[in-house]
Amino acid sequence: MTVVNGTSEMMKPESVSLHPLGAAAAPVPEMLCIFGTGDLGHSLGLRLLQSGYRVVYGSRRPHSCGLLPQGSQVMSHEAAAQSASLIFICVHREHYGFLETMAPHLAGKVLVDLSNNLKKGIYPEPNAAYLQRLVPGAAVVKGLNTLSAWALQNGLLAGKQVYLCGNSAEAKRAVAEMSTKLGLTVLDKGSLSAAGELEDFPLQLFPEWRLPLRVAVGLTAFFFFYLVIRDVIYGYVEQDKDISYRIMVSLANKVFPIVSLIMLALCYLPGGIAAFLQLYRGTKYRRFPDWLDRWMLCRKQMGLIALGLAFLHVIYTFMTPTRYSVRHKLITLVVDEMKNNKSIPFDFDNTEAWGQDSFYALGILGFFLYVLLGLTSLPSVGGSLSWREFNFIQSKLGHLTLFICTAHGYIYGWNKFLRPSTYKWYTPPVYMLCLIVPSVVLVLKALVLLPCVDRTLTRIRQGWERNQTTEEIGKVTNL
Amino acid sequence: MTVVNGTSEMMKPESVSLHPLGAAAAPVPEMLCIFGTGDLGHSLGLRLLQSGYRVVYGSRRPHSCGLLPQGSQVMSHEAAAQSASLIFICVHREHYGFLETMAPHLAGKVLVDLSNNLKKGIYPEPNAAYLQRLVPGAAVVKGLNTLSAWALQNGLLAGKQVYLCGNSAEAKRAVAEMSTKLGLTVLDKGSLSAAGELEDFPLQLFPEWRLPLRVAVGLTAFFFFYLVIRDVIYGYVEQDKDISYRIMVSLANKVFPIVSLIMLALCYLPGGIAAFLQLYRGTKYRRFPDWLDRWMLCRKQMGLIALGLAFLHVIYTFMTPTRYSVRHKLITLVVDEMKNNKSIPFDFDNTEAWGQDSFYALGILGFFLYVLLGLTSLPSVGGSLSWREFNFIQSKLGHLTLFICTAHGYIYGWNKFLRPSTYKWYTPPVYMLCLIVPSVVLVLKALVLLPCVDRTLTRIRQGWERNQTTEEIGKVTNL
Amino acid sequence: MTVVNGTSEMMKPESVSLHPLGAAAAPVPEMLCIFGTGDLGHSLGLRLLQSGYRVVYGSRRPHSCGLLPQGSQVMSHEAAAQSASLIFICVHREHYGFLETMAPHLAGKVLVDLSNNLKKGIYPEPNAAYLQRLVPGAAVVKGLNTLSAWALQNGLLAGKQVYLCGNSAEAKRAVAEMSTKLGLTVLDKGSLSAAGELEDFPLQLFPEWRLPLRVAVGLTAFFFFYLVIRDVIYGYVEQDKDISYRIMVSLANKVFPIVSLIMLALCYLPGGIAAFLQLYRGTKYRRFPDWLDRWMLCRKQMGLIALGLAFLHVIYTFMTPTRYSVRHKLITLVVDEMKNNKSIPFDFDNTEAWGQDSFYALGILGFFLYVLLGLTSLPSVGGSLSWREFNFIQSKLGHLTLFICTAHGYIYGWNKFLRPSTYKWYTPPVYMLCLIVPSVVLVLKALVLLPCVDRTLTRIRQGWERNQTTEEIGKVTNL
Repeated sequence: MTVVNGTSEMMKPESVSLHPLGAAAAPVPEMLCIFGTGDLGHSLGLRLLQSGYRVVYGSRRPHSCGLLPQGSQVMSHEAAAQSASLIFICVHREHYGFLETMAPHLAGKVLVDLSNNLKKGIYPEPNAAYLQRLVPGAAVVKGLNTLSAWALQNGLLAGKQVYLCGNSAEAKRAVAEMSTKLGLTVLDKGSLSAAGELEDFPLQLFPEWRLPLRVAVGLTAFFFFYLVIRDVIYGYVEQDKDISYRIMVSLANKVFPIVSLIMLALCYLPGGIAAFLQLYRGTKYRRFPDWLDRWMLCRKQMGLIALGLAFLHVIYTFMTPTRYSVRHKLITLVVDEMKNNKSIPFDFDNTEAWGQDSFYALGILGFFLYVLLGLTSLPSVGGSLSWREFNFIQSKLGHLTLFICTAHGYIYGWNKFLRPSTYKWYTPPVYMLCLIVPSVVLVLKALVLLPCVDRTLTRIRQGWERNQTTEEIGKVTNL
Repeated sequence: MTVVNGTSEMMKPESVSLHPLGAAAAPVPEMLCIFGTGDLGHSLGLRLLQSGYRVVYGSRRPHSCGLLPQGSQVMSHEAAAQSASLIFICVHREHYGFLETMAPHLAGKVLVDLSNNLKKGIYPEPNAAYLQRLVPGAAVVKGLNTLSAWALQNGLLAGKQVYLCGNSAEAKRAVAEMSTKLGLTVLDKGSLSAAGELEDFPLQLFPEWRLPLRVAVGLTAFFFFYLVIRDVIYGYVEQDKDISYRIMVSLANKVFPIVSLIMLALCYLPGGIAAFLQLYRGTKYRRFPDWLDRWMLCRKQMGLIALGLAFLHVIYTFMTPTRYSVRHKLITLVVDEMKNNKSIPFDFDNTEAWGQDSFYALGILGFFLYVLLGLTSLPSVGGSLSWREFNFIQSKLGHLTLFICTAHGYIYGWNKFLRPSTYKWYTPPVYMLCLIVPSVVLVLKALVLLPCVDRTLTRIRQGWERNQTTEEIGKVTNL
Repeated sequence: MTVVNGTSEMMKPESVSLHPLGAAAAPVPEMLCIFGTGDLGHSLGLRLLQSGYRVVYGSRRPHSCGLLPQGSQVMSHEAAAQSASLIFICVHREHYGFLETMAPHLAGKVLVDLSNNLKKGIYPEPNAAYLQRLVPGAAVVKGLNTLSAWALQNGLLAGKQVYLCGNSAEAKRAVAEMSTKLGLTVLDKGSLSAAGELEDFPLQLFPEWRLPLRVAVGLTAFFFFYLVIRDVIYGYVEQDKDISYRIMVSLANKVFPIVSLIMLALCYLPGGIAAFLQLYRGTKYRRFPDWLDRWMLCRKQMGLIALGLAFLHVIYTFMTPTRYSVRHKLITLVVDEMKNNKSIPFDFDNTEAWGQDSFYALGILGFFLYVLLGLTSLPSVGGSLSWREFNFIQSKLGHLTLFICTAHGYIYGWNKFLRPSTYKWYTPPVYMLCLIVPSVVLVLKALVLLPCVDRTLTRIRQGWERNQTTEEIGKVTNL
């Protein structure tokens, strides 16, 4: 008993005229069922119709459930379930109850659970497991829940990766086939016990950014307070000057480049550590310690945070000459000069000019390379590079960037290292502190590039092992 | 009678050696026919050959039609049509005439019309409808016309979406299958009556950018003339000064940030209006008015225009200190100071320093967030975010950006609001005008965030309706 | 005799529970074999398992070959080969030897050679040809060698293009089908004689960037030395001043914009040349000379280098006011002024203000358009544009950018052209030299836009030929 609602009778005339010509020969397309006529159900149905399926909606109020995609049908849940073997459950978990009562109608059907929760850990069991418990006779497949109604409606599916899991291989194959027709790439995550993991995916908020962000925030806070104490409080206590206004711009413009340089160095430090670990162990076949693995996995995020901070540093620097305090200082300098009639500071100092211009030129070049590195980490740019090109940019160009930015830091302090006034309250200035990690990384890299070390490392990475028994040497090694 | 031209005999030797090994077992690949040996026909044939099809060209001059892809054949139109069931028409509409004369040879074939016109509305009927009228016995499918010869030749097809329409479902299925093999994603647009729409696609020039651009141009023009009157003409009339040179940089650098801030606010205004509309109606199941829908669909473009203008504002600001007039003002200030020997303006004003530095710091932070928003709207970056991440960035970070930029605007005028000289000719200064819309949006957002409002809105968005009859409450709601 | 190692017994319980439900109906998935348990073999196996295949590894030490993907089996090479018809060779070429000894076991199998070399030209024949020689009874397919273990493991395959070649069409079809299941787009490169070309792909390092980079480096070097001679050495010889410090920033900031503008003009020059060549020949059906083809193919790279140099120019310019020498000059100017009490240079020059502000405004606008052009050449942004939109941006907007940047250059020298002091040592200043090419390109473009030329050109590009015989005119032309 098919209940067809107004929408399907409102189908465009052209939809009706589809069949006449090839009707005899063309096989009737497969019918899929969707429970739930909300945004997601609506968009999913639209997309399925566009991919050549027939779609029937199951609704508690088939006669009054709003506008549905043209060409679809609406029936009661029971009738809709009977007419399809694959049923999408686009209903909130709280309302799964009604499925238990109609379990006999669902026996042998494939139920695709697309539901997500609003927060983690609201329910003791995943939605899909709950559904399987309610309808034990059906094959529940959890999946496609990372798709949003918005993406479905706008056809942004091409090549998108979706996850599936379920206990029935056959049911999963049916869902995977349907997904492939929608243009999706399917990744099987195993049995239904993975459903909890899948339901947590859409709730994730930048998980891989957490560690790098924590490191960046920690470093920023440390250097900020260090600078407040050394610059502002020191000035207030020892010289009785209120220079607190510097916090907004001058201090920020010291903290950002420092943290940026350290973060960039931290991108390349784990590579160096890994190389020496492999040299020490004499094999590449032993796993790295967990902390090193975790570190290496968030290098891209560290680099991007470093780029962001470098960008802020650059903008702050460009802003400098228009600042009130800078202009005030300049005018005061001129006026003092005129009043006192001393002309010494106005002699042109060629060394100073060379030093400062080199400082700027290195900074600009470093930032330029920084931006290049950032551009190649855009998915679409990185994806168009060959492996060797990507490697060249991220490793060679990355170390060059680090080298140039470190040199930029060294030149900044070139004539201040030995001046006693630099060491206020016996503490070293921040630019000295920030050069430690980059210098270590560059020394490690220089050691790795030594011919003898490089040769051993290359052999290890091609599969050679120092402790191989003699009969094994010269045998098969693997790509 | 097959006429094979020189090209196919020039096939590389390796193409010949393809078959020996598995020849017995392998099924012969399907033969497809292409009418027309121009750029598009050439590139399409190349791509079809690479995807494993055999290709035969139909040409009026099979013996002299230039270089064709290796491995293809060339015949007369009639002979070529006979050897394939699917024929691509890569010929200009003006030359469809010859197809009428050979209609008997085309009966029962699938004709794919890939043609485009140079302008909209040149012909009374779409090319595909015209073709169907000429060859009524064939099944015409309009489609693939958004592909360029250039994209075909460079293999830039993976995942690209193409549109099809046609009256025969069977014919469409054949074309869709072929397209999928080429790596394309197919979207069925219905019967042949959609052909006009499809033929207009490649002629579109940024349709979704039109409304935002018009708004931006309108606002820019308004504020520009408002500023010219208030600043340049006022100065000329009342103070007899010629400051027209300010139009190029100073005025531009006032108009850009103002329009940018208003455009950014206009991105978030429809969201606020929609929320209050849902609250007022007590349901999410009623459609928004058309103007609101249109507005919401162009939010991304509005945001990008706002980013572009903010970028211009930043560059103009960085340029400022090198300007002739700025340097002139600085020097005049110092010289006047020295000559008059008054030292008051050179006292360091700590409040001024704090105020200006905060102004700059907020501006820089705002621009930084602006750029982040822009980066996540790159298709490849946005596509790699989960729905919650995208939402977090576009909504939370977006409103934060708006808040910071609005604060930047308020600080600019913090000590000018009550000064009478601000109100030249009794008109308010532009920065006051530009703060109205952002302030309204932020107040709306603050109201929505109130716990009581937020709770009701969340329930409405989960499908709750205020006017539901009692027996319906507590029943199924949909995702 | 199947040797199953520990790993497969360590399979997760859920993998075991996959089959119960639909076991009767579901066909057993195909078994694929991988020789080699290195990084690549490991990652490939993982991905194949996720795509629904069964995987068996062949290993020389099946009992001790490290952690393998869950759900896979490990056997001796012979046993593994027997259980599958498709074998991936993930072993270094140096160790192919063992395959010769087991050639009888490999007869009739499809061997996929995924190997790459460390450098070009180490071996006289490609790896795949060597493999085919060792195992003449098998069908060797070279391919997938552009995939890295890293990309396989991280699922970055969707839509990626891979190349195949091989003598057996049937074997290639099997591999292509498997690749499509992994989400890859396959491009058949012909017979096994293309293997060398395929093995060179991953070794390429920006081949399409080489010519543009050489041009850029050449131009940079020329203008740098020209400027050093004209500015620094001239100053030293004729005026006895040491202004060598200018090399770091002032000179660089002259060289970058000059080379940038010339490179941008070189992007649009070949288009102009091509148009006049077509006009001269009266047909579009004759190929362009090779040098023009090569030039046209690297226009995008030229444009991006031009953008990079423009970016450097902008940063250098913003840096200028904070430079020591600039501040020194400003202070000296004021002090001199005060001491000599001359007030003429402080009179405000309205023309100067207009000129300089226009110069800046044009520069900023030009840079803005430059960045827009750069953004649309990002693969993901360009891919979302229609052909007409892409064309509009790259052609119309590109020429507008060139026009604005050229105007920026002309205004720079507007009042210097006729000053004799400009021509030091009778050489023209660099900004004159750099305006030649852009001016030529703009004149060419203006000529092409003349209605009479434009009409002829449009007809030629639609297929019209000047020398067509009369009976051919009015016949079929092709898209």
